[in-house]
Parts: sequence; structure tokens; C-alpha cells
Amino acid sequence: MEANNTTSSLHSPCAACKILRRRCSDKCALAPYFPPTEILKFSVAHRVFGASNIIKFLQEIPESQRADAVSSLVYEANTRLRDPVYGSAGIIFQLQKQVSEMQSQLARAKAELAAVQAQHENLAAIVCMKAWSLPNDSEEYSPYIFQGDHSSSVNDYCQASNMWEDSLWT
Amino acid sequence: MEANNTTSSLHSPCAACKILRRRCSDKCALAPYFPPTEILKFSVAHRVFGASNIIKFLQEIPESQRADAVSSLVYEANTRLRDPVYGSAGIIFQLQKQVSEMQSQLARAKAELAAVQAQHENLAAIVCMKAWSLPNDSEEYSPYIFQGDHSSSVNDYCQASNMWEDSLWT
Repeated sequence: MEANNTTSSLHSPCAACKILRRRCSDKCALAPYFPPTEILKFSVAHRVFGASNIIKFLQEIPESQRADAVSSLVYEANTRLRDPVYGSAGIIFQLQKQVSEMQSQLARAKAELAAVQAQHENLAAIVCMKAWSLPNDSEEYSPYIFQGDHSSSVNDYCQASNMWEDSLWT
Repeated sequence: MEANNTTSSLHSPCAACKILRRRCSDKCALAPYFPPTEILKFSVAHRVFGASNIIKFLQEIPESQRADAVSSLVYEANTRLRDPVYGSAGIIFQLQKQVSEMQSQLARAKAELAAVQAQHENLAAIVCMKAWSLPNDSEEYSPYIFQGDHSSSVNDYCQASNMWEDSLWT
């Protein structure tokens, strides 16, 4: 009795043993993952999976992964209590739907980008062709020189286009 | 005894009662969701949640939602057996990561689209300004007329731009 009293004064029973109203031994499989303060955490997991199933799950996996397994079980149990019909599966279906919608949005954005890029390259090519066809001394109407509120000039596009074309032959 | 024999010959026990080795009564709470042929389905759910928990879950929700609840429980149980460490939570975390990555991709695509659109509008505005500054009889160099491989013309952009500007004043 004295030894038992000493043990119980040194070690509080873990949250699982408190809820299951049993003696918490040094070999308790649940104590490392449900310390005395984590009553709610064990209570939730216990309500959904049952203590014996939780112990069985933990015994089937390496010790190094048991803390992660407990976290995922508690997460799933919380989700099941919040949504008793669909639980974690409901979240998975919603996320899969969101991924599918975002894939469509992304495909549309990429198609739109490709279309605007093609339109832009087309206009730039037309402008550059026209620029090259103008006489060199026609400064007044030369598309190489633009003034006003716009910071970029056709010259930029034509030079960029020349560089790109040159790179094909070097 | 004769009545019992007649009942058992008319109704096969449900998958749950077969696995639990108990008599399947007309009031069996699991029979509607685990017919005799669905042995694996019940076996999986039973291994993860336990029969008593499954019955408890079903009793806590309206009858109209019980079939969905069984489907989600079986789904989660299958996921837990395939991934004993992370189960459904692992799928949720992966999907959340995928959504987050796709949100970044979408934001980048939208920013890139806005940049190309701005660049394109800038070039179109420059071209149209230049086009309006040319003399009307300068057909040879008029940017309204383009020939070659390109199907679109600066005229399209300038007309579109005019329409847009007009709409501000109407």
C-alpha cells in the first residue's frame, strides 16, 4: 500500500486511465500520448474509436509514428463529432471539389494568358514590320520615337523582337 | 423452433450479424446499411470504429442521413487501414497543401495576365496615338492598313479603343 501511495503521488494517472477509471501503470500504452491534462483529447478519440481500438492501432505501428497517429485520430474524431454524417470524408469531398474548381480556374487563366500574349505578340510584330518599312529620315512619323504619358515605346518591342530572332541563329 | 427456421430461411443475416455471429432480427439497426453481401464493408468499418460505436453514431442522426453516414464511415475506415498513421487526416493535409499551392499558382497567373494585358494596352494606346497623328492622305505609311501574314490590324485595336472611350461619355 505504501509503495502504491508513493507511486500515485509521483505519477498522476493519464487522461485515458482517468476516463476509463483504471489504474495507470508504467506500461500504460496510452499514457505517453494522453497526459493527465489532456482529458478532452482522449475523451473525443474514445467516443469515436473506443479505447481498445486506439490501443490496437498504436500497437500496429512503429513507436516513432505513434504521436502522429494519435494526432490524426484526435483530428478525425473531432471532425466526426462536429459533422456526425460526413466527418472527415465530408472535408475531403469539399477539398476535392475546391481542387477541381481551382484546376478549371487555372486552366482558364492560362488560356486567357496565352490568348493575350498571342494578341500582344501579333500587334508588336505588326508594329515592328511597319517601323522597319518607314524611311530612316522620317523622324516626325517614326514609330521608334513616342512621346506622351506612356513610358514604354514601340522601339522596346522591336528591339526585343530582334534580339529574340537573332538568338535563333546564334 | 419452426418459426425461427422459417425466419432464417426467408431472411439471411446482414453482414454485421454474420461477422458478429449473432441473430439478425427485423429490428437490426445495421441490416439496412450492411446487407448480407457487404461483408467486407462492415468488416472494415467494424475494425476501425467497432460495431457499438457505429450503432451509436447511426442512432444519433436522422434516418434519412444514415446511409450517407455509413458511406463516410466506411470511407474513413478504408483510409485508416490503408494509412494507419495518418488516415483521412493525411488526405486532408495533402489536399490543403494542394489548394494552397494552386492558390499561389492562380495568383501568379492572374498577376502575369494583368501585366501582359497592361503591356498590351500600353502598346495599343501608343499605336493608336501615332495612327491619329498621321496625315489622312499618307496611305503608304498609314498604320490603319497592314498587309502580310498577320490577320489582325492596328485598326482593330484603335477602333476597339475608340469604342471603349466613347462609352465613357455616353
